[in-house]
Amino acid sequence: MDAEARLDRDRTRRIDLPEAIYCQSKTVEQCVAIVRDLLADGHRSGTANGNGPGDAIVATRATPAQYEALLDLKPDAFVGPATAGHATLSWRHRSSTGRTAAVVAAGTSDLAVASECRLTLESLGHRVETLTDVGVAGLHRLLDALPLLDDVEVIVAVAGMEGALPTVLAGLVAQPIVAVPTSVGYGTAFEGQTALLSMMTSCAPGIAVVGIDNGYGAACAAHRMLRPLGLEWDGPAT
Amino acid sequence: MDAEARLDRDRTRRIDLPEAIYCQSKTVEQCVAIVRDLLADGHRSGTANGNGPGDAIVATRATPAQYEALLDLKPDAFVGPATAGHATLSWRHRSSTGRTAAVVAAGTSDLAVASECRLTLESLGHRVETLTDVGVAGLHRLLDALPLLDDVEVIVAVAGMEGALPTVLAGLVAQPIVAVPTSVGYGTAFEGQTALLSMMTSCAPGIAVVGIDNGYGAACAAHRMLRPLGLEWDGPAT
Amino acid sequence: MDAEARLDRDRTRRIDLPEAIYCQSKTVEQCVAIVRDLLADGHRSGTANGNGPGDAIVATRATPAQYEALLDLKPDAFVGPATAGHATLSWRHRSSTGRTAAVVAAGTSDLAVASECRLTLESLGHRVETLTDVGVAGLHRLLDALPLLDDVEVIVAVAGMEGALPTVLAGLVAQPIVAVPTSVGYGTAFEGQTALLSMMTSCAPGIAVVGIDNGYGAACAAHRMLRPLGLEWDGPAT
Amino acid sequence: MDAEARLDRDRTRRIDLPEAIYCQSKTVEQCVAIVRDLLADGHRSGTANGNGPGDAIVATRATPAQYEALLDLKPDAFVGPATAGHATLSWRHRSSTGRTAAVVAAGTSDLAVASECRLTLESLGHRVETLTDVGVAGLHRLLDALPLLDDVEVIVAVAGMEGALPTVLAGLVAQPIVAVPTSVGYGTAFEGQTALLSMMTSCAPGIAVVGIDNGYGAACAAHRMLRPLGLEWDGPAT
Amino acid sequence: MDAEARLDRDRTRRIDLPEAIYCQSKTVEQCVAIVRDLLADGHRSGTANGNGPGDAIVATRATPAQYEALLDLKPDAFVGPATAGHATLSWRHRSSTGRTAAVVAAGTSDLAVASECRLTLESLGHRVETLTDVGVAGLHRLLDALPLLDDVEVIVAVAGMEGALPTVLAGLVAQPIVAVPTSVGYGTAFEGQTALLSMMTSCAPGIAVVGIDNGYGAACAAHRMLRPLGLEWDGPAT
Amino acid sequence: MDAEARLDRDRTRRIDLPEAIYCQSKTVEQCVAIVRDLLADGHRSGTANGNGPGDAIVATRATPAQYEALLDLKPDAFVGPATAGHATLSWRHRSSTGRTAAVVAAGTSDLAVASECRLTLESLGHRVETLTDVGVAGLHRLLDALPLLDDVEVIVAVAGMEGALPTVLAGLVAQPIVAVPTSVGYGTAFEGQTALLSMMTSCAPGIAVVGIDNGYGAACAAHRMLRPLGLEWDGPAT
Amino acid sequence: MDAEARLDRDRTRRIDLPEAIYCQSKTVEQCVAIVRDLLADGHRSGTANGNGPGDAIVATRATPAQYEALLDLKPDAFVGPATAGHATLSWRHRSSTGRTAAVVAAGTSDLAVASECRLTLESLGHRVETLTDVGVAGLHRLLDALPLLDDVEVIVAVAGMEGALPTVLAGLVAQPIVAVPTSVGYGTAFEGQTALLSMMTSCAPGIAVVGIDNGYGAACAAHRMLRPLGLEWDGPAT
Amino acid sequence: MDAEARLDRDRTRRIDLPEAIYCQSKTVEQCVAIVRDLLADGHRSGTANGNGPGDAIVATRATPAQYEALLDLKPDAFVGPATAGHATLSWRHRSSTGRTAAVVAAGTSDLAVASECRLTLESLGHRVETLTDVGVAGLHRLLDALPLLDDVEVIVAVAGMEGALPTVLAGLVAQPIVAVPTSVGYGTAFEGQTALLSMMTSCAPGIAVVGIDNGYGAACAAHRMLRPLGLEWDGPAT
Repeated sequence: MDAEARLDRDRTRRIDLPEAIYCQSKTVEQCVAIVRDLLADGHRSGTANGNGPGDAIVATRATPAQYEALLDLKPDAFVGPATAGHATLSWRHRSSTGRTAAVVAAGTSDLAVASECRLTLESLGHRVETLTDVGVAGLHRLLDALPLLDDVEVIVAVAGMEGALPTVLAGLVAQPIVAVPTSVGYGTAFEGQTALLSMMTSCAPGIAVVGIDNGYGAACAAHRMLRPLGLEWDGPAT
Repeated sequence: MDAEARLDRDRTRRIDLPEAIYCQSKTVEQCVAIVRDLLADGHRSGTANGNGPGDAIVATRATPAQYEALLDLKPDAFVGPATAGHATLSWRHRSSTGRTAAVVAAGTSDLAVASECRLTLESLGHRVETLTDVGVAGLHRLLDALPLLDDVEVIVAVAGMEGALPTVLAGLVAQPIVAVPTSVGYGTAFEGQTALLSMMTSCAPGIAVVGIDNGYGAACAAHRMLRPLGLEWDGPAT
Repeated sequence: MDAEARLDRDRTRRIDLPEAIYCQSKTVEQCVAIVRDLLADGHRSGTANGNGPGDAIVATRATPAQYEALLDLKPDAFVGPATAGHATLSWRHRSSTGRTAAVVAAGTSDLAVASECRLTLESLGHRVETLTDVGVAGLHRLLDALPLLDDVEVIVAVAGMEGALPTVLAGLVAQPIVAVPTSVGYGTAFEGQTALLSMMTSCAPGIAVVGIDNGYGAACAAHRMLRPLGLEWDGPAT
Repeated sequence: MDAEARLDRDRTRRIDLPEAIYCQSKTVEQCVAIVRDLLADGHRSGTANGNGPGDAIVATRATPAQYEALLDLKPDAFVGPATAGHATLSWRHRSSTGRTAAVVAAGTSDLAVASECRLTLESLGHRVETLTDVGVAGLHRLLDALPLLDDVEVIVAVAGMEGALPTVLAGLVAQPIVAVPTSVGYGTAFEGQTALLSMMTSCAPGIAVVGIDNGYGAACAAHRMLRPLGLEWDGPAT
Repeated sequence: MDAEARLDRDRTRRIDLPEAIYCQSKTVEQCVAIVRDLLADGHRSGTANGNGPGDAIVATRATPAQYEALLDLKPDAFVGPATAGHATLSWRHRSSTGRTAAVVAAGTSDLAVASECRLTLESLGHRVETLTDVGVAGLHRLLDALPLLDDVEVIVAVAGMEGALPTVLAGLVAQPIVAVPTSVGYGTAFEGQTALLSMMTSCAPGIAVVGIDNGYGAACAAHRMLRPLGLEWDGPAT
Repeated sequence: MDAEARLDRDRTRRIDLPEAIYCQSKTVEQCVAIVRDLLADGHRSGTANGNGPGDAIVATRATPAQYEALLDLKPDAFVGPATAGHATLSWRHRSSTGRTAAVVAAGTSDLAVASECRLTLESLGHRVETLTDVGVAGLHRLLDALPLLDDVEVIVAVAGMEGALPTVLAGLVAQPIVAVPTSVGYGTAFEGQTALLSMMTSCAPGIAVVGIDNGYGAACAAHRMLRPLGLEWDGPAT
Repeated sequence: MDAEARLDRDRTRRIDLPEAIYCQSKTVEQCVAIVRDLLADGHRSGTANGNGPGDAIVATRATPAQYEALLDLKPDAFVGPATAGHATLSWRHRSSTGRTAAVVAAGTSDLAVASECRLTLESLGHRVETLTDVGVAGLHRLLDALPLLDDVEVIVAVAGMEGALPTVLAGLVAQPIVAVPTSVGYGTAFEGQTALLSMMTSCAPGIAVVGIDNGYGAACAAHRMLRPLGLEWDGPAT
Repeated sequence: MDAEARLDRDRTRRIDLPEAIYCQSKTVEQCVAIVRDLLADGHRSGTANGNGPGDAIVATRATPAQYEALLDLKPDAFVGPATAGHATLSWRHRSSTGRTAAVVAAGTSDLAVASECRLTLESLGHRVETLTDVGVAGLHRLLDALPLLDDVEVIVAVAGMEGALPTVLAGLVAQPIVAVPTSVGYGTAFEGQTALLSMMTSCAPGIAVVGIDNGYGAACAAHRMLRPLGLEWDGPAT
């Protein structure tokens, strides 16, 4: 369409969150153009991104072809595993906030989503503690790892299949828990719907849930909790 | 309809299970007539029940009015709580098999279903170990109770809401686990569908699931596991 | 069932949250007995509640009959409106934490759920800013009210029907947003499912969602965000 | 099947709407043959199209291969972007009606559907005002663009994900609003179902909705509103 | 909640539509109070309605008790049939616009919804042509009635069960068609979902659909089409 | 609505089927008035029924109050059991066609639906063979009854729960099978949806299915098969 | 699995229907082997087919590769169009029964399913009248074609999208109607579910429905209606 | 993620079940590495498997590429058919337990799932009786095969489409029945959901169900029933 794009130029100023490049609905060329533009700190036109100059850059759900092209553009990216057929990349991080979140994943199959979350949080300047393979079918692994969560301020719990991990966690710790259902599994996993419903209906109090496979959204939710009230974002890390 | 009813007269002989009186789709009068007939050991006509003479008698999902009328007919029944708007009653039990099952319920709201299961198992001659209030939001209650399960041969796990109890159990014990989702909860509990899906999709291996609120069916499944191969049922307890 | 109840006696110590009395699956007598027991600070038996002595008391989803009986027991309760056929009551509050949340409701029909959330937060010692009638069909009402949100640390957004309120909010403010879909509406509202899906799929970043009509769960999620890391709960308000 | 095709020869006369060539269920050869036939103004055989001679020609949901072949046949087509894996083409337009519609799209991912709508409206002789990137997460972009809608007679609002755009619009403007849910998004977007349900359940009055991704249907609905009562279509533009 | 209600006082000015009183989520007393207030042309407090003084008054989905109380308050209301367990009432109408809509209902069971639509349209000053019993199982009834539609500008088609009426209509007439699925039927009617899906997926071009049973919403959609561009509403009929 | 009702006066002439009185969406008074009118053979006004004079009369899904009132009006009705909360009544039958259908029901709970089917078929002049209690859990009952089906021309198979009866039947007999899923059961029976899906997906060839609980529709489908090609209906039995 | 296959050798004797070769779940080699074996009239091993020697042969849902290989094996097959990505083939037909069915398809996209039905009916010895492009959006095409249906004994109505064709037909003709929903369409067509629900819920009496895209099943249902009671199948056509 | 993997090293000790290698979410290289490691009896790192040394090895849902690579690694595997696009492989079996299970499959299309179950059971040391092609549409095949089930202790019933096989079985035999719904079928089979619902809702008592296509889970459930209480696993077969 030939209409002039209407940029959301001050999203960062309003809500302290830059827009990510959601690769899934874009061509390789579009992805590369947007990242090149953001890296150059210039004002882009023709896309919906409206991040402030110099802000963190995150690209989510990149296909293998997009992943290769983006690494070619600027190889020194932080990258997550591409095991689920899509990957996350991040280039520029904000300066450290001195705050810590945990990303806790039930199984190895959940790592693509967990990495999307971790890289986004790190790009926003937070430290991330990572726990994997703590599914509730081997409960002692989770119980043994609990001390590692003592000093984190927010926990993102990532799980597919029956999605019981955040329920068990929420009965054991007092921190905020953001639950991310993943589309891992087959048959009655119903592409993550079972995990989603299970998390929404938990018998443990105070779990808040984001959309299926939405590691980026979980990171944004956690970021809203980690930034102190009234904090002004003061520019990118240098 | 005026057609002659075709009784399933030898169900007990074939599959060693009597039919229960499923009260929900019957009038008070029909329920009373069937139980009176079964208590008299006579051959009934006009109903679908075809249990052998003297076999166990179980009535499930009795409304308060049915419950009152059945207790009036023969007050010395074994009864479960009517907290869910329906109750289970049982009159005649088979002789003891010397075998033990456990019925494990996540919350007090699951007791109506758990009782339907327990009374059915007891009517079939089995001993039942009962654990309640062992929901996974208070994990230590379940862990503390595990030794009570050491000597049971089959575990029926009853849970509503997110239904995580059988998943946690199945990672801790080696016995057969029959999971019963209950319609406890509101909103995203979706009348037991969430618990059902969660149990079917468990990351823990070897959980077998029966229908929502089907405590009777879980007892029948457990009974199939408790009877030794080739066992011949040798008549009612006297 | 005759098994001894296994109380979750130290839930408050572990996760700093008392159990609420969920009235829906209990008789009037059970509700009254539990509240009387909690008010007496004694140790209760036979229920699943295991709050520490003197902790906040909240009863949710009370039917009109339960509501009357509970007010008869102790009339000086804090109460929410019973417009949705059920109501929330609260008796004892924790001492003030000096922290503030907002409960923002799209329409008057959402007030029963919003009150469940507000009363729970207040019982936990937090101050609550309340905004109602800020549905997005009359956008200026929401825009006019934004300054009232400047000093709150967490926002709970309650909406039924199409559930667009948290989406619009999340593009305007930087605080954590806990979204509560309500079962308000008919037809394609599908008892809150439409609002739930809409909130999970928001184009605005960082919304975390709790179950349909789960005002209590939203308050618990907000409470997890409002308590400082490492805070020890030091007993009830006196 | 060898039966003679029964053409809907006078659809345009009856309802003033030509049939579009819906490419998705046709081979490349079939698409080319139909368009060649329509361009020649001849009577076609073997297809369901029954447009009058010389009427507007629109092909929707063309695959890349169909797109290439149709452009090869007659390169001077009006075309929309193929970003969603399918594209719209249009060749012959009716003479101008002097009326104006707006097509308003929430995000860049909605452009394939928005273009299908715009090209169809233009082929029917209407002027189309296009607004993109006006998603409600950046509300000011929409508010800034409102004056552009002052003179349009019908608004088509295209949105995926949570689909809140038409709800916000309907509280701000008085014109007819035709909402088109798109299958943009993943996870809980459920291929457009969430946007569809959200639009059907809007708290704002008077939104009418067409099927998921049905930009052509939205254009037809808008066309029915733009043609004056009793208007006789008087042949193609020359 | 004690927060001051934020009225949408200028809805009529913005979108030329007053808010209806949606009785379903209100007590009898609340309904009576709002209508009394509106009849007195005064500014109300404590509700979400914000219609201009003297505007049309419509109450939808009134229960029998609400219906009686509202008629007691002011007996000279226009009323629809209460056959579906709820009814519509209207008191004050805008002056005539000189424009005409048709409300076409498939069966007698659809009349409650059809009346909600007709009374709302009439309250907004439009003339309404009404056709009933034109379900497609007796096609000739619909074909015979077609001439009655020649002079209407918008058609609202109301149907439950399989919802085929708007599809057949849309192949026969050129006017805008707003389709309203109703919850009439049982079993696979699924409370209107089948009719809704059928209408959204019509093989006939240009049907726009509102929510299940939403006669009020259909009237609002039709009203948006009936008011000429730029029309200023000039006060109530006197 | 004040529009003149458009009667389907020649339905019987066109499709040889009278309309039934579907009581569910009508008041007691409306039901009585329609039946009184039909009994008087007069032409009725204000309803959708358009049966020829003297044709069969069937009322379906009558509530207990409607049932009483209709029997009061004319006590010599043929009636089915009201066990499912609704009942079927029939007054005037067509003359015998000399043809025979079977209605086969899986359980006693399916009798309300089976009776609706049987009475409708009998009112149309067919003989009906009835088999009940032939659920597939007691297979021998069905196998024993097979000879009774040898001379029937069409079989209507009625079943709830898992709905396996028509599948087993279709592997054993060569006649047409019309399957009727019923809403019998609870939990995963999902109000008949499970039976419906099971019947639609049968591994046995040639089962045709009608809607949930639609005994009347099954009778109409069977009637279409029982009437010889070109048969002219020649008036009621006298 | 190495177990000996248990053939259903006398299916034709029992229910007068041969098994079709359902290609979708088989390799090319398996399909070719089965058809070669059937053509040779020998007894096959290792498959589930158990048709009598010399009976009709039908292969359904053949992929392009299977289609090619089967035509290579024996080129003189009757074949349907492969427009939907799969095709039907038939080789040996039973001798003529002298009876006639009609297959009526709403649109060209439904032809793959319609052909599966037609070829199966012809292989069973019936004559088939075919009508296509009679969708209800162009009603006169259907009305004009009605005389062609006068002499058919059963009508199979095939339609996708909103599936209204059998509903309109059932109000116009008295013959049995077997409705086949197809997965034609996108978005709210939901892969044929919308058409299925619409057909099950029809306001027209006596429609019987088979599974989505199940042209073979519809033919079997029609065949059950076309064979006279007691007819013995007397071997293949020669 | 760089966090150290937390192995479930003593799963076999706790629940007597090794973890299978679920290939679907792994690369070919990952699958080969895990199996090589397990074959070498060494302790692996970086995966979630934590089986004891020398335990049985089973790989499920291997794609053709994974299947080839795994056979290349160690060709003397036990393998199942790859007809469903994925296959099962097993290398090392536990010593014989002297117990017997049956795997009963409705159709040839169910063999991939049935083999996953059979190979897993055999790897755990059990003997497996296999019955195939015993779908209920050819009932006599099942009835003829019943004597083969006399000496098995547990029956796994595998079926797709309408899933009636376990229902019929459960009315005929007294052993435990584990039902496995498969995703065989198209249209209303809904990827196995119909079979799942049918099995959960069976009118026959005591069926326990595992997830769709979950042959491995069914084997684990059966294994829990086959191991005697208190049995200690004493190492691999040599």
